[in-house]
Formats: sequence, structure tokens, C-alpha cells
Amino acid sequence: MKSKFCKDSIATMMEIVLPNDTNTLGNLMGGRLMHLMDIVGAISAQRHSNRIVVTAGVDSIDFKSSVRLGEIMNLKAFVTRTFNTSMEVFIEVFAENMQNGEKRLCNRAFFTFVAVDQSGNPIPINPVVPETTEEIEMYNGALRRRELRLLLAGRITPEDAKSLHDFLIVKK
Amino acid sequence: MKSKFCKDSIATMMEIVLPNDTNTLGNLMGGRLMHLMDIVGAISAQRHSNRIVVTAGVDSIDFKSSVRLGEIMNLKAFVTRTFNTSMEVFIEVFAENMQNGEKRLCNRAFFTFVAVDQSGNPIPINPVVPETTEEIEMYNGALRRRELRLLLAGRITPEDAKSLHDFLIVKK
Amino acid sequence: MKSKFCKDSIATMMEIVLPNDTNTLGNLMGGRLMHLMDIVGAISAQRHSNRIVVTAGVDSIDFKSSVRLGEIMNLKAFVTRTFNTSMEVFIEVFAENMQNGEKRLCNRAFFTFVAVDQSGNPIPINPVVPETTEEIEMYNGALRRRELRLLLAGRITPEDAKSLHDFLIVKK
Amino acid sequence: MKSKFCKDSIATMMEIVLPNDTNTLGNLMGGRLMHLMDIVGAISAQRHSNRIVVTAGVDSIDFKSSVRLGEIMNLKAFVTRTFNTSMEVFIEVFAENMQNGEKRLCNRAFFTFVAVDQSGNPIPINPVVPETTEEIEMYNGALRRRELRLLLAGRITPEDAKSLHDFLIVKK
Amino acid sequence: MKSKFCKDSIATMMEIVLPNDTNTLGNLMGGRLMHLMDIVGAISAQRHSNRIVVTAGVDSIDFKSSVRLGEIMNLKAFVTRTFNTSMEVFIEVFAENMQNGEKRLCNRAFFTFVAVDQSGNPIPINPVVPETTEEIEMYNGALRRRELRLLLAGRITPEDAKSLHDFLIVKK
Amino acid sequence: MKSKFCKDSIATMMEIVLPNDTNTLGNLMGGRLMHLMDIVGAISAQRHSNRIVVTAGVDSIDFKSSVRLGEIMNLKAFVTRTFNTSMEVFIEVFAENMQNGEKRLCNRAFFTFVAVDQSGNPIPINPVVPETTEEIEMYNGALRRRELRLLLAGRITPEDAKSLHDFLIVKK
Repeated sequence: MKSKFCKDSIATMMEIVLPNDTNTLGNLMGGRLMHLMDIVGAISAQRHSNRIVVTAGVDSIDFKSSVRLGEIMNLKAFVTRTFNTSMEVFIEVFAENMQNGEKRLCNRAFFTFVAVDQSGNPIPINPVVPETTEEIEMYNGALRRRELRLLLAGRITPEDAKSLHDFLIVKK
Repeated sequence: MKSKFCKDSIATMMEIVLPNDTNTLGNLMGGRLMHLMDIVGAISAQRHSNRIVVTAGVDSIDFKSSVRLGEIMNLKAFVTRTFNTSMEVFIEVFAENMQNGEKRLCNRAFFTFVAVDQSGNPIPINPVVPETTEEIEMYNGALRRRELRLLLAGRITPEDAKSLHDFLIVKK
Repeated sequence: MKSKFCKDSIATMMEIVLPNDTNTLGNLMGGRLMHLMDIVGAISAQRHSNRIVVTAGVDSIDFKSSVRLGEIMNLKAFVTRTFNTSMEVFIEVFAENMQNGEKRLCNRAFFTFVAVDQSGNPIPINPVVPETTEEIEMYNGALRRRELRLLLAGRITPEDAKSLHDFLIVKK
Repeated sequence: MKSKFCKDSIATMMEIVLPNDTNTLGNLMGGRLMHLMDIVGAISAQRHSNRIVVTAGVDSIDFKSSVRLGEIMNLKAFVTRTFNTSMEVFIEVFAENMQNGEKRLCNRAFFTFVAVDQSGNPIPINPVVPETTEEIEMYNGALRRRELRLLLAGRITPEDAKSLHDFLIVKK
Repeated sequence: MKSKFCKDSIATMMEIVLPNDTNTLGNLMGGRLMHLMDIVGAISAQRHSNRIVVTAGVDSIDFKSSVRLGEIMNLKAFVTRTFNTSMEVFIEVFAENMQNGEKRLCNRAFFTFVAVDQSGNPIPINPVVPETTEEIEMYNGALRRRELRLLLAGRITPEDAKSLHDFLIVKK
Repeated sequence: MKSKFCKDSIATMMEIVLPNDTNTLGNLMGGRLMHLMDIVGAISAQRHSNRIVVTAGVDSIDFKSSVRLGEIMNLKAFVTRTFNTSMEVFIEVFAENMQNGEKRLCNRAFFTFVAVDQSGNPIPINPVVPETTEEIEMYNGALRRRELRLLLAGRITPEDAKSLHDFLIVKK
């Protein structure tokens, strides 16, 4: 299988925050934002794998800034690393203020998608090749994040989480 | 402020998986499910705090089972622990097969909500009191999960994550 | 066919009233509420029959209280009586005020659902067994309500509506 | 207040049945249809009263025919009679088959709407004047239907339901 | 194939402008209105052809008047002329003010729909026969509008656009 | 007022075609696509003007290719020219096949947006400066398209449409 570059899987979305996306204070509800993050992430994973993809997991998300009714959400996603049938996708969301064009970070998250065939069974995918410094850092950190996922899901023991261990004891 | 029991904040939802919730294989999209989890979690946090709440964060989610078009999603949420202005809410999702009534676990997750006043500023909330064994376990585990959240968000260092450290080195 | 208890078919939903659900005064539109009542009723009828169900009819509904933007709707449904291929489902809706947790009755209604096979043809269902006083009262009243339905739909004459006649002449 | 004719309040809608409106057999869900009936009824009541209106009640509905994905729903509503602050609106729904243009009756129902001011308080409305034979029949039957509504809602006793009594004992 | 009259294809819709249809000033967004125009136009084209139809093109639209939250949109469409497998449909939109019942023109547009078979291939349709003065004028103008469409789409040269040429040089 | 470059107003969107966006053949409905085009166009116009914008008009659109359920729509928009209070925005839509990543042109269109203040009144905007060959061509062609718009809307006579006249008589 032919490898692809991270940049080949970049997916971007812009959405205006509409009334039904907001709570009674006029702020975007977190669930609506996660819904959009899942869609842009799935598009990115489909672009990389040329397959139907399903969401396998989401890493912890920290909502840093509220988004207001009428603001524009900017979402960007790309595949950071592949693991046989699954892909880690990095998603970043910025809110854009219409009056001054300022963008502020809302959140950053890693989603995991699995490529499946027409029967819904996992199917191997082509590897991804990082190029930029940011892509290479994310590629390298992916193993550690994967260990944390498996550990939190109870699929490996702390002893098996070697990359994670070093990270938690001595963090750079 | 008067404390409340965990059970006072229980919120439950049932939803039928509709065509627009599914991908081309007829499986529920993960983002739609997270959207619903956020709503049921917010209802639970509102019930506890009697305040408007906003989603502050989501812990990692592992999607264990796919949900099919026409199946019924059962969501349940309750507040596990409070931290001054924020609440940890546990959410559990089961899919129910119509033909045989069987339910299977789709995922379990912890969301964090913050209570806010009419200007959107955080506001202190009443504490929660666990009663059952499951509630007490979740209450106790909340500190460890909070450390992991803060660590992953870069707000504390590994040295400060004491509960988490023990958990990762010697996990029961 | 194995009978089931009323409580086995209990279905509950909670929904937050969103902007698009409301009129220009910020009150929930009745049609949106009936839409949700139909869904929770269908889930209940599916749970009882383990079949696909279609809405056959709705008894008269009296909207007792308006519901406001941001309030939480609590819906509850259960099967009260079965008639060969159809089920009467009782649905009750409460609105919950976030600030004080108070619930007030919005409406109560009886929906009728028919179980169908994959071709859409009616198919016999298992009987329901009432247990509590409320369930038994509803079970007993179901015949009278059925007569009223048939009478209003022009399928029987007033002379045939024996239970109803007594109810209308001498009501307890 | 100036009276208006029934025909001045006629409201009509056409909608295509979309995937999300249907169950897994591809049939329109009853709740979605009631949602549309409520909207077309509210438009009719607004046209008559030139006021914001809220749904006060719905008479029993009998779903006579299933509607298929892709079919066109034809809804028509007009005010049949007014009672101080409330209006009875008759709504009729036909499904239209695209291949042959045939229309078949899906259901007929009476909704009651109340005109309200900006604070949501009921406000008197102008009377309606029936002209055609159908309109006059509906105008005359409105008292009987109102009695049945009040009786079912527990607001009057069977003794007070004079028009209804005659109808149920000797139905023409 | 049997011809039909323009009036046989009349389709009408009414919709209330809901919060999610509006921008932050409470005005209907143009895209939402075009969405509705496409639906009412498609219903009209389906009625004429008794076939599934797809949107082939839209002539230029001039939005003349803004529509407010809570106002009622009145849409009307009919087939003005047919061309082998395609139909030109005229669509007119009025906004209706609830307080005084006044209607004002929002826009008028011509959409082109193509009838297709189950495989999505174009299929010949029956001709339309105009009757009223307005219908006949629209029928006659359809050739000119078609030339402009083809010219703007680069499918014919200005020399071929004979009807259009006269119109642009000497316009009545 | 400070001028901006065309590229500063570029807005891009990706959307997956969902079941409710399609007709019974599984093809994207044109109205849904126009709805999305309006949103991406409005985002672009907002980015340029830092103002709330309303859709003033749409030039004729030619739908070149159908889009299938599950395909990804790629929309791109930028401001091509400004006219006191209005902006012409060019919008291009491509459909992307998931299996092979191929993109095909669906349509290209020009929308016109007007910047408004909080009361909805038109307000002058900063000019746009084209840089690339494509941008300059579009900038130059904007006058001709504007004349055609005004002519078709009956606001100028053919004699006044000088740029357009040359284009229609001798087209390059």
C-alpha cells in the first residue's frame, strides 16, 4: 500500500454558530462542537484511507474558550499516525470574531478512526508520512497517546505503558 | 449551600437512531452520540446545580459497539463529584436491540461542566453526596481523573499528579 | 405469546427546549412536543412488542402549561393495554424549571400504535399485564377510550359504545 | 372587532417526506406529521387573529393511511369557529403519489389555538363567518366538539354536555 | 404523451421563519429561502412530469425584501414551459406580516428541473399548455431565458442567442 | 477604509452529504447545496467587511454534476469586487469521491452580499484588491455581471448596459 503525506489528509470546515447550537446565554454547546469535530475528523480519515471510517475513540478534550452565537468556527484536521486499521487524527478548532477577524483557540483534540469495508469489518490502511516539525512531533507522540488510551480503556497494564511512563515521570 | 445526593441528578434519555444520524453503512456517527451525551450530561449538571452549565471538558471516550439505524440509544448521567464551580458527570450509553430487547454497552465517559451566572461567570455550587458503592467509587476516583485532566491540559506537572502516579505505577 | 408487565415498556426521555422549538415568545410549540411524545410512545410500544410500530391514532390532548426556552421536558410512556395488533400507550409530559427543580404537568395523552412486520402488515402482539393501581385503572379505562376512538372515527355507532355510554351519562 | 370569513384563514403546505421523517420501513412517522399539522394550523389561526397563537389542544386523530418516503404531503387548514380568545382550526392531510398524482386522505383533525399578547396572556379575537355548506356544518359541530374536549379534560360534567349528549344518543 | 395545463402543476408552501433560519439580526438567510424555493419548485415539476426530478439550474435571483423571524413565507410555483426532458418552473415568494396580514414580494425566480428515471438518466416529459395571459407571457419568454442560460453557461455563442439579442438591443 | 486582498476573504467548507440532503435516488438536492453556498459566501463576505451581511442576489447557477449520498462537498468562496455597500463573491463547489479522491466540478456561482449595521441598513465597506490572474479577471468581469443583474432586475435599460453589450455582441 502506498503511503501518503499528512498534508494529503487535511480537512477544513467553517460553520456559523446558529441559534439552535447555543444555550440560553447564546454560547455554543460543547456537544454540537464535538459533533462537528467528528465530521471534520472523519473527512480527514476518509481522505487518507479512501475508505468508510467509524469513530473508535476520542482523547480528552479541554474547552478553552466559549464561542458566541454568530461567530464562525474554523475546524482543521489531519491524520497524524496510522496503526494497521486505525488512524489518529488531530483536530483544532478556532473561533473567529466577525468584527475584528481575531481567532482564538477553542480546543485541540485527537480522535481515532477505524477504516472498515462494506460489511463494517476493519481493513488495513496505508501508512502516513509526516513532513513538517509539527507533524513529526505529533507522529512521535502518537505512541504515547495510544498507550494512555489503551491503559484508560483497561486493555493494557501500567507496566506495558512504557512511553507513557517516561512521559508522566519526566515530562519535557 | 445544601448538599444533594448523586441520585437527585440522574438524567436519562432515549433516542431512536434516525437516517441522518448514520453513515452510509447505517451506523450511528460518533459525533451525534457525543452530542447527545453532552445534552444528557448538561441536564444532569443543571439538576444538581440549578444553574446554567457549560461544558468544560470531556475525558477520553472509547466507542465499544456500533449502533444501528432504528436502534434505541439509552443514555444515563449523574453527578459524581463537585469542585467549587465544576461538576464531574458520569455518562453511560447502551444500545437496545428492538427485536430481542438486548442492551449492550456503547460507551462510558466523564464530562466536566461548570455552573455559570447570567453573565457566563463561574459560580460556586452545592456539594454532592455519594450513597451507593458505585457512587462512592466514582466519587473517590474523581480526584485521580481530575489530575489526569489537568496534566493532559498542561496545567499541572507529573510531580503534582500524586493520585494519578500511584494509579499508573500500581494499578489495582 | 408471553405476556409482559406494563413496567417493562416504560420509556423516558428528557429534552432541553431549544430556540428552534419555540415561537417568537420563547414558548415551546405544541407540534414539537407532540413529535417528541410520538417518539417516546413508539419506543415504549417497540419495547413491549419487539416489533416495528406505526402510529395509528392519538386521543385528544389538552395543553395545560406552556414550556419555556431552556426548560427541560420530561416524557414518560408505558403500554396500558393491548388489542390483538394494537397497543394503547399512556404518555405524560412534565416541564422542569432549572432554577428550582419544580416540575409541572404539561399534558397527558393516549397514543395508539400498531405492530407491523417487514412488509408493514399488522401482526399480533403479546398481552400486557397491569400491576399497580394506576396501571389497573388505565387498563380498565382502555375499553371506554377505545369505544370513543371508534365512535369518533365513525367505525361504530353510539349504540355500540356501551362502556362509553355509561361513562357519559353517569360519570364517577 | 371586524369578523372575517373562514376562507380568509386558509393555510396550505406541501412537504416532501424526507429520510429523517421516516421509520426503518420508509414510512412517515406520525409525530412528524402532527408537527406539520400544528404549524399549518398555527399559520391559519394567526391569519385569522393577526396575533401570536399557542396550541391549546388537539382532538383525537385517526391515521388512515401511511405516507411513504418521497411522497408529497398536502396540508390544508382553516378556522371553523372562534370562542372569545380561542379558535378551532380544521386540518386535513392528503398524501400525493408522484407517479400517478393520486391523493389519498391521511387524516383530519381539529386543533384549538389561543391568541395571546406579547406577555403570553389570552386576548379576545374577531369572530369567523362560515359561508359554504362544509364551513357551516363545521361551525355548527364546533360546540359539540368543544363540549367533548371540556368533558374529557374534566372541566364540565356529562350533564353539562348537552349538544354532545344528543350526538351520542342519536347520531345522524 | 398527454399535455397538461400550467395550473395542474401549481405547488404552494407556507413556512414560519424559525430562529435557526435567521442571522443575528433576526432576518431570514437567503440560502434557507433558496432551499425552500428548490423544494416547492421540485414538487411542481414532479406534479407536471410524474417523475423524480433534479435541479439543473437556477436563473439569477434578486432578493427584494428581508423576511423577519416569525413571519410567514408564502411560496408558489408552476411549470412555465417544457423542453424535451427539462422544465422551467416559475417561483414567487411573498412574506406575510402577522399583525396586519400584508404580503410583500421577496423574490421571483426561474428554476430548471430535469425529469429522470430510476437510474438518474433524463427522460422525456409531456408538454405544458399555458392558458392565462401571465402563463402565456411566461411561456413565450422561456425561449429567451433559455438562450441566456445557455450563453452564460458557455454552451452557445452570442450569435446563436437570437431571441435574447433582440431583447437586449430593444427591450420593451 | 483600508483595502484588503481577495485571499483575505477566502472561506472554505467541507460537508458530507447526509440522507436528509438527498432525494429518493440518493442524490444531493440542489436547494441544500445552494443553502451551503450561501453560508460559505456569507462567511467570505463577513471576513472581508467585518460586518453582518445579507444576501442581495444570486447569479444564474448551472448544476453540472450530481453529488451522491456520502460524498464530500468542497466549497470555496472569496470576494471578487466591492461596490460601495455590496460585495460580489465567487463560489465554487467540488464533489469528492471517497474511494479514489477524485474531485469534479459541481457548480460555480456569483452571489452578492450587502454589509449592514445593527439596524439592518447598508453600510460602506472597504475595497478589495485582486492579485492573481484569476482574481484580476474576475474583478474585471464583475462590472459586466453587475450590469446583467441590474438589467435582469429591470433597474437599467439595455442602452445603459455598455459592458454587457460588447460581451453579448462580440464575446471573447
